[in-house]
Amino acid sequence: MTTLIIGANGQIGRRLCEQAAQSGHAVRAMVRDEQQNTFFDSIGVETVMGDLTGDMDHVFEGCDQVVFTAGSGGATGLDHTLMVDLNGAMRAVDLAREHGIRRFLMVSTLHVDPLKGPEKLRPYLVAKRAADAYLQASGLEHVILRPGRLSDDPGTGHIETDQSRASTGDVSRDNVATAILTLLKRQTSAPEEIVLLEGDHPIDQVLG
Amino acid sequence: MTTLIIGANGQIGRRLCEQAAQSGHAVRAMVRDEQQNTFFDSIGVETVMGDLTGDMDHVFEGCDQVVFTAGSGGATGLDHTLMVDLNGAMRAVDLAREHGIRRFLMVSTLHVDPLKGPEKLRPYLVAKRAADAYLQASGLEHVILRPGRLSDDPGTGHIETDQSRASTGDVSRDNVATAILTLLKRQTSAPEEIVLLEGDHPIDQVLG
Repeated sequence: MTTLIIGANGQIGRRLCEQAAQSGHAVRAMVRDEQQNTFFDSIGVETVMGDLTGDMDHVFEGCDQVVFTAGSGGATGLDHTLMVDLNGAMRAVDLAREHGIRRFLMVSTLHVDPLKGPEKLRPYLVAKRAADAYLQASGLEHVILRPGRLSDDPGTGHIETDQSRASTGDVSRDNVATAILTLLKRQTSAPEEIVLLEGDHPIDQVLG
Repeated sequence: MTTLIIGANGQIGRRLCEQAAQSGHAVRAMVRDEQQNTFFDSIGVETVMGDLTGDMDHVFEGCDQVVFTAGSGGATGLDHTLMVDLNGAMRAVDLAREHGIRRFLMVSTLHVDPLKGPEKLRPYLVAKRAADAYLQASGLEHVILRPGRLSDDPGTGHIETDQSRASTGDVSRDNVATAILTLLKRQTSAPEEIVLLEGDHPIDQVLG
């Protein structure tokens, strides 16, 4: 059994695949074009061709968990947000259910209520909220990860999951990847929503 | 008890309010600014100020049914689609549940699968699909109306609800309004999804 990574070629996805390969956790990277294979070949991660806006039914075969970390942040056009972040996520949830996937991990956002988020980000936050709600209503065992503002700082291996105790709104992509991998390795159920911010607590103690 | 109309000042909403006033069915029109009151005053329909992207908690008081016919079609910007068609709908569903609303009628679209709809419309269709899914998962008694391409032709009072038997992909806004009003008056549960196209069957026989 292996874990399907949707959005594997993204900034969190690549880090997650690297860490998974290093620690011997089997993952399958869904990629959109063959040029992306070079990176995954170099780190020894299996790839499968699939398109969030097209054909991807076959990519779930033989997987027991799915990580959805595809998406645009707030940076791309809203057509992309709707077709990838929202419709791609809804299709992935449908297909996960059809394929009997055991657990679905969604990389979402810290902002639960779009109307309370930064004004510029609100339409994007609406798409993320709707995708989260679709997963929550799916009946799948799931985890919704709520990272803060993403940074490229090197991973510290330490986080804070209580927003009211956090001293920053940031979290590194390295730490997000480590948190996902820790949850993937955990066999028992995890909390259904987890805030991820920089902090003082070792990730494997908090989430392992 | 009265029916709240969200999107009352739109092209279907105005027709619905006119027909409701004529037939003595009590409706409350949610409007965004006071200038819109003139029309509703002229036809004798109660209004309430509310904003789909802001304050609207109070508008549900004393209502037993809600019609959601707000939205942009595919014509406005996708920020509007996300904030009104999708987030507005999700908030209306949440508030309807909190206020113990008996039934929620959603005006949606004929295209259930966004990827099979016209390419230009797809991002809009994704927003509508997500809003429908949110309502379906809400536990509220509901009806999702799936009208075809909307026209301004005068209402015939006749429709077709079986897409495979329809001779056209169109339906008049008049007929959509009549269908909604017919469902509002019906006390028993209705089918949860209803296609609305021009046809040969009297609306009150099909839906009454």
